[in-house]
Formats: sequence, structure tokens, C-alpha cells
Amino acid sequence: MNNPALKPQSIALAEALREAAQSAPESGIVEAMKYGHGRDGMIPLWAGEGDLPTPSFICEAATRALAAGETFYTWQRGIPPLREALARYHTALYGRAFAPEEFYVTGSGMQAIQIVIGMVAGSGDEVLIPTPTWPNAAAAAGIVGAHAVEVPMSFGNDGWSLDLDRLAAAVTPKTRALFVVSPSNPTGWTATRADLNALLALARHHGLWIIADETYARFWYGEGPRAPSFFDVMDADDRILFVNTFSKNWAMTGWRIGWIAAHPALGQVIENMIQYATSGVAQFMQRAAVTAIERGESFVAHLIERARRGREISCNALAATGRVRFAQPDGAFYLFFAVDGETDTRRLVMRLIDEANVGLAPGTAFGAGGEHFVRLCFARNPEQLEAAVGRVASVISNRV
Amino acid sequence: MNNPALKPQSIALAEALREAAQSAPESGIVEAMKYGHGRDGMIPLWAGEGDLPTPSFICEAATRALAAGETFYTWQRGIPPLREALARYHTALYGRAFAPEEFYVTGSGMQAIQIVIGMVAGSGDEVLIPTPTWPNAAAAAGIVGAHAVEVPMSFGNDGWSLDLDRLAAAVTPKTRALFVVSPSNPTGWTATRADLNALLALARHHGLWIIADETYARFWYGEGPRAPSFFDVMDADDRILFVNTFSKNWAMTGWRIGWIAAHPALGQVIENMIQYATSGVAQFMQRAAVTAIERGESFVAHLIERARRGREISCNALAATGRVRFAQPDGAFYLFFAVDGETDTRRLVMRLIDEANVGLAPGTAFGAGGEHFVRLCFARNPEQLEAAVGRVASVISNRV
Repeated sequence: MNNPALKPQSIALAEALREAAQSAPESGIVEAMKYGHGRDGMIPLWAGEGDLPTPSFICEAATRALAAGETFYTWQRGIPPLREALARYHTALYGRAFAPEEFYVTGSGMQAIQIVIGMVAGSGDEVLIPTPTWPNAAAAAGIVGAHAVEVPMSFGNDGWSLDLDRLAAAVTPKTRALFVVSPSNPTGWTATRADLNALLALARHHGLWIIADETYARFWYGEGPRAPSFFDVMDADDRILFVNTFSKNWAMTGWRIGWIAAHPALGQVIENMIQYATSGVAQFMQRAAVTAIERGESFVAHLIERARRGREISCNALAATGRVRFAQPDGAFYLFFAVDGETDTRRLVMRLIDEANVGLAPGTAFGAGGEHFVRLCFARNPEQLEAAVGRVASVISNRV
Repeated sequence: MNNPALKPQSIALAEALREAAQSAPESGIVEAMKYGHGRDGMIPLWAGEGDLPTPSFICEAATRALAAGETFYTWQRGIPPLREALARYHTALYGRAFAPEEFYVTGSGMQAIQIVIGMVAGSGDEVLIPTPTWPNAAAAAGIVGAHAVEVPMSFGNDGWSLDLDRLAAAVTPKTRALFVVSPSNPTGWTATRADLNALLALARHHGLWIIADETYARFWYGEGPRAPSFFDVMDADDRILFVNTFSKNWAMTGWRIGWIAAHPALGQVIENMIQYATSGVAQFMQRAAVTAIERGESFVAHLIERARRGREISCNALAATGRVRFAQPDGAFYLFFAVDGETDTRRLVMRLIDEANVGLAPGTAFGAGGEHFVRLCFARNPEQLEAAVGRVASVISNRV
């Protein structure tokens, strides 16, 4: 394998791979990140993560577990204390009882998605995904040979809205699941209780699974401590699989810990899927996750308050240019905006890296309906965010 | 979801899942572990892990990285220092140059397997797997809709041997890959250079991929510092994907860090597969992996020496019963033995848990040809291992 890149035959190697693997798309977000990586003074608002490292009280729980020798294989479904903590967390947040048996620890929210997609869809099946949305679910469906059917949401004077008729019309005999991200990354759209009921009725009618990605439930700017949830409207036996992550609430993006909430009757299947994916999550990391849940509420509140301020800062600065269109997000921590006259947002993002030294993600990364938008993550300290959105606003005002 | 297990309708939920997910087998190893879990004085030799926790110098590297705030998203292919360390490690071990671009960090060796299988096989494809072998590769193939075709090895007076004619006869137009674990878990069989050349010729002839699981390369009881490897016989452009793990060499089973070695031409595809599986491995864990490679050689040597002693202890004790058959393993750290008159090894394993208070893994977990054997992991401190194999030998001698 010395200097293998020099040999022309090596091209044939990639072509010998399975078609679905070859055609898995490069993340459009990662592409922008690579372009801007390592620039001096760059303010990165491209990824779905804030600027705060994981709080030390959480890190120290991992450190203690490591020092105690918790470095062996562990429970495939997650350590019991973490499943119990997740049950208590949900009980408090959703106002009714949950059992530890409804929770399964995964090696990231992404893995939770990979697993539940593999549970319900395979080769030739279809998964309906309202877009614009975070692209990874569609890509994960593609890798198992399923077809992600994008159903664009509408953007109008009232912001983003779900077109239920269009969604219903997209159902075919091959449809197996409906993938719903609410609050939405990237649009900030959040399903109302009425939306959730309508989606559930559609799923029940056609016997579809709902995959509910409620990662941003806590980052919610309406009434109450969290966004409306499928937990509010479902019956115990509805075909709903919830995916979630420790990444956003507790600033643990780099840890790669998530969870699935699902009916206990699915427990053995989920355990098997975990076994044949990564065979569990490091026990010392799970200890940190327990600590995050048990002692992290004031930190979560701090992050939410910061995001609320970031939302105000970025909406104000961009609106002041008079050249952008966006819906003020109801949830999550992104501003998804279009710039008048800019249709090639991949190029726009590269230019903003070059000229504003600010990293955004191109709307092309988020599927049908988002092509003319760019995504800005406002989960950041207010001073730096002011500077960043000021620079972006200035480039937009001067150059467009 | 209150008391959902009580509702009869819940059974229908599992039946609404995709067939390939429903039929993913429960790990036969995990089943035994659940049966024996938590018993007083139990000596567990069922899993593929030793009794030593990760050395503190490795844990401390993770702790330092955590304290330094390395808790953000990171490189999908692995952090550059770890890819460089892997290249140096391979260069030293295989006696020729490797480049960092040939290495990809994964969230466990299991994930490395999941990813490479997804790269080469999908719905309807076949993957040939000589058995007995660790069951997870076949299960991972099944989940993507591929068919794992077991090709039993022969057990005779000369131990385990690969039947190349039988393997060649199993190739069909649907065959995409050949999965080779050498040294073998559970049998300890290790491919000779002649075996490797023959397997490579077969793969070249039919245009198959080879997936080379060389996890146990260092645990080798023949000449030299490691077992024969496909690296010794391949050309740069051969279709070979290597999977490996930090679990065994550095006592890091619980961490879930592995790697893929592959031609750089496959880099973007591998990156995409990682992105849509778990989106990378925690940076602070990767720092520990760098330290393991850079400072871990004397620890690896200690583990190997301990395994060599464990092999002697277990072979001697079991041979002395006069009622077992096995091939002394050439590599890995398992004794795979059959007990005269015992054909139901799942029951035998449960009985050894009850009567010897020692946990073994039933051969039924390892596919065709291994049904009448049980697997004993001898990577353990010699005193405790003596006690365990003594108890097993005593039950076998008295009761069979």
C-alpha cells in the first residue's frame, strides 16, 4: 500500500463497492467546515453545537468512573442507573410516569436514528421526511437501501408550515415510516399539538411508524418548559420510536451518546441492533450522562436562556439588512434565512467564509425546499454572536 | 406508555417491525452472561475480555483531554494524531511503510465490521464466513439484508483447518465478500501464509472483497511478533478491508474504539459511512488511543505473556480430564473444546454456571461446526484461571 493513490487502478476499487455505499452523500455541512477549517478569527456557526465545552461536573463523573476501572463491556441497552435517570427525566418533563424499560442508550443520537431506521425500513422501502431537515436521517435510510422521500414544507408569510395533504399524497404501498424532527433543525418550525395529532392520524391510517426526533424539545421559545411532543398525544401501542441525544441539552456533542425511547416490547430487537452496531456505550461515559441528567438542570436552563438571547441577536441583525427572509424560529437554535438574489447558497456560504470569516451551513445540505436558505447556529456567547452576525449582515448589505 | 407490557396489543408492535430486524439473533454469548450475572464467586470466562482494567496511563490521557475541553465534534475519519499513530504502529509491526490516510477510526471494532459490510454487501448479497466464528459479523450482514453463508471448517487430528474446496464451492454469482477472522475467535486457528495466499487467489478470481478481521494478530503463539497477515501477501489494489480494535491489545473493551485500514481511494465513502452511523468517536477517547499506541507496548507484551500462560493452564487442566477434545490454539485467547457425550452445549454452559460457578460461552453461538464445543477465555490472572479451569475440569470429570 505504498503511495497507493498514485496507481490508476485504485479508482476501480471505489467502483467495486456497493452502489448504496458509493452514493451516500458527503455531508454538505462538513464540506463547508472543511473549506473554512483553521482560519484565524473564524467564527463557526455552521455546526449544530454551541461554544461551551461540557461542564466540568459532568466530565468529572467520567473521570471518576475511569479511575474506578469501569472500562469493561457493559449492558447493551445501557447501564440501569442511566435508564432509570432517563425515566425520571421524562417523568418530570412530560408530566406522567415512564419506566426504565422504555429507554435504550445509544452511541449518539445519530446511532439512535440509524437503529430505528434499520428496525422499520429496508431495501425498497420508503421513508417520508418533511424537508428542509437535517440530512443525516435520509442518508442513513439510503445506506440500508431504503428511499427517503422528501416532502417539502411551505415557507410563506406565516413562516414554515407542514403541508399535510402533500404528505398524505406521498404515501405509497412502500411507505414504512414518517420521520418528524420537531423542533426542526434547520427551520425552527415546531409541530403544534394539532400538527402532532394530524401526523399521528395519518400514520395510524396507513400503519406507518413515526420516528420522532425531539432532540431540540428543550430549546423552545413558546409556553412551558418544552415543545409539544408525540408523548402528549400518543397511546402506548402507537408505532412511535423516539430518538434523542445528550449533545445539545448538556453541551456534549463530542461524546456521542444518545437514546431511543420505545415500547418495552421492542427491547430485545433494539438490544440486538445495538449489539451488531457498536455493542454498547462506554460505561464511564454513561456515568457522565447520569450526572448530566441528575445535576444538569441549571446548566440546561442557562443554555436555553443563552439560545433565547442568540435568537434575538441574530433575528435583529439579519432583519436590519432588509435583504433577508426568515421565520423567527419557535424552537431549536438555528436561524434559517434566505438572502434576496442569492440562489447558489453553497457559493454564498463559501463567500461568507472568505469575506465575513463566519461559517454557516448551506441550505442545499437540508433537502428540498431549503436550497435558497442558509443555516446559522446561534447557540453562542452573545458578544461573539453579535460580532459574527454583524459581519454577515455587513457582507449581505454591501454585496447583494 | 404506563404499564404497556400489560397490554396484549403490544405484541403486534414488534411484529410490525422489518423482518430482518425482528430476526436479528440474540447473542448466544450475552444469553449465558445474563443467566450467570451477579453470582457470588462466579469466574466469568464467557466474554472476549480479560480481567485487567485499562491501564491508568491510558485513562489519564482521556481525563486530561476532558479537562482541556475536548468535548466538541471532531474529524469523522479520526483525529490526525491517532491516524498518524496507527500508521506508525503498522509500519513497525508489518515492516513496511503505511500512511495515515489508510486508517479510519471507528466506534468499536464491531462498528468497523458494520461499516465495511455495508460498503460491500446489501440486500440479497452473500458473504462467505468460515465458521465457527464470532457471530456478530454474520448478524451485521443479516441486518443489511445480506445473507451470511457459513462454511464450516474441519476439526480433525491436526486441529482446525480451512477447507478451500468447500469455500470455493460456496461462491455464487451473489457472493460479494469473504469474511476471514485470523487468528480465529473462538478456535484459535490462524491462517498460514499459504492459507492467506489461497484465500486471496480465490477472492481475486471471483472479484470478491476480503474483510480481514485481524483483531488478535498480537496474540500469536508462533514465531515472530504477530500472526501472518493479509498485509504480507496483498497488492495495494487488492479488495481488502481490515477491521481491528483497541479492545484486546490494550484492555480497552469497554471503550468502543476500533479502526478500519483500507486504501485511501475509499476514504470519502468510509467517512460518509461513519457520518451516518455515529458521526465520529469522542476526541478525548481518541487521545487515550494515541497514548495506548505510543506508550502501551510493554503492557501489550504483558498481556500476551499472560495469555500464553493462560493457554498452558487451560489446555493442561482440560486435557487431564481425558474427556475433552480441542486443538491447542495458535492465536487469540480462547480454548474451544468439546466434551465427550455433551451435545447440548447451551445446557452444558448453564450447568457449568450452576455447578462450577464459571461462565463459558456455548459453541452454538459461533455458527456451523462449533455446536458441540464451548469457548473459554483464558486472558486472566493465572491463579484465578487455575481455580476456574480446575472447577470446570472437576464437573466434567465427575458428571459426564
